[in-house]
Amino acid sequence: MLTLYDDMISGNGYKVRLMLSQLRIPFRYVSVDVVAGETRRPQFLAINPNGQIPAIVLDDGRTLSQSNAILLYFAEDTPLLPHDKFARAEINQWLFFEQYSHEPYIAVLRFWQHLPGGPDRAQQARLPQMLDKGNAALRVMNMHLGDKRFFVGDRYSIADIALYAYTHVAQEGGFDLRHFPHVRDWLARVRELPGHIAIDEACGARD
Amino acid sequence: MLTLYDDMISGNGYKVRLMLSQLRIPFRYVSVDVVAGETRRPQFLAINPNGQIPAIVLDDGRTLSQSNAILLYFAEDTPLLPHDKFARAEINQWLFFEQYSHEPYIAVLRFWQHLPGGPDRAQQARLPQMLDKGNAALRVMNMHLGDKRFFVGDRYSIADIALYAYTHVAQEGGFDLRHFPHVRDWLARVRELPGHIAIDEACGARD
Repeated sequence: MLTLYDDMISGNGYKVRLMLSQLRIPFRYVSVDVVAGETRRPQFLAINPNGQIPAIVLDDGRTLSQSNAILLYFAEDTPLLPHDKFARAEINQWLFFEQYSHEPYIAVLRFWQHLPGGPDRAQQARLPQMLDKGNAALRVMNMHLGDKRFFVGDRYSIADIALYAYTHVAQEGGFDLRHFPHVRDWLARVRELPGHIAIDEACGARD
Repeated sequence: MLTLYDDMISGNGYKVRLMLSQLRIPFRYVSVDVVAGETRRPQFLAINPNGQIPAIVLDDGRTLSQSNAILLYFAEDTPLLPHDKFARAEINQWLFFEQYSHEPYIAVLRFWQHLPGGPDRAQQARLPQMLDKGNAALRVMNMHLGDKRFFVGDRYSIADIALYAYTHVAQEGGFDLRHFPHVRDWLARVRELPGHIAIDEACGARD
């Protein structure tokens, strides 16, 4: 059985948990405590030398990391990833947007708030710029969703999963989603889909 | 004909130029000056609402942005992107690694050095941490390349193109590649491949 190394606090991990739940793919769940530094221990670096969760180990021992690469791998030949070449390109575009223009601000500000003691002085100095950049990403999403139900081709896909993960908890990092009504409507649509689980909802077989 | 909106200083743009050169795909080149703020003008935001180059416009007017999404689109069914499912997953993993753990440090430090006046005070305060994180990415690459000629499946692919773009000019941002001998050997191998062009080498039809 597939093994997922993950931390329940992680939106990147949640993407994988949510997809596997919706695709009804069984997996073994191994908890790795990011804040306690467990991703930097040799045992975990043997699985992902880049020291990040989520990471998966397949039945045959092969490993894969990077949440969005894991989404692309399992979504192949499922309704979550269309075959049309340009639709796939648009999904990839949003996946890279998420990791470059969205996650580094929206996820990181939430993570800082979850740190024991909250953000340190250097982090506090960066808060205004990080909020600006996160709000810029939310504006791009809000504009795109003005006339669309989902991000690509009017169908729920891994682009929605990737962007939902940290957007739906953006408030925890200090973002105000009331400024982005199309984003809020989209979040509600995603939440209502079959197989949806919450970010803190236990799933997978546990040791 | 395909149109590429790009800035010659950009390694992200260089990825696309290098790939199109090696695939012998003709394109029209439109220069967009990032430092002068041209990516924030309405004319360009109509092409990419996220305000980043590179962006492409296809013959039929459809647009696509995110350098690595553009690589994936054009590399499909070429030797630069294998059909094997797990090899593709590994390529995606390196593409996301590049955008999340590599580019934000290695490309950004180089960009700051290219700014008129160099990095400002706030940027200077972040230099040590940025160097640490960039060096961590180079260590991961160096370890991976210890027994490999290229990043995935011992064959040159878009994973190599994506990682080559900013790694080969990392010195301009203050990185010392002498600490990463396997990376240097790999850079030399990539440089020798047919169709290779330099980052400042003009290509594409220009208006």
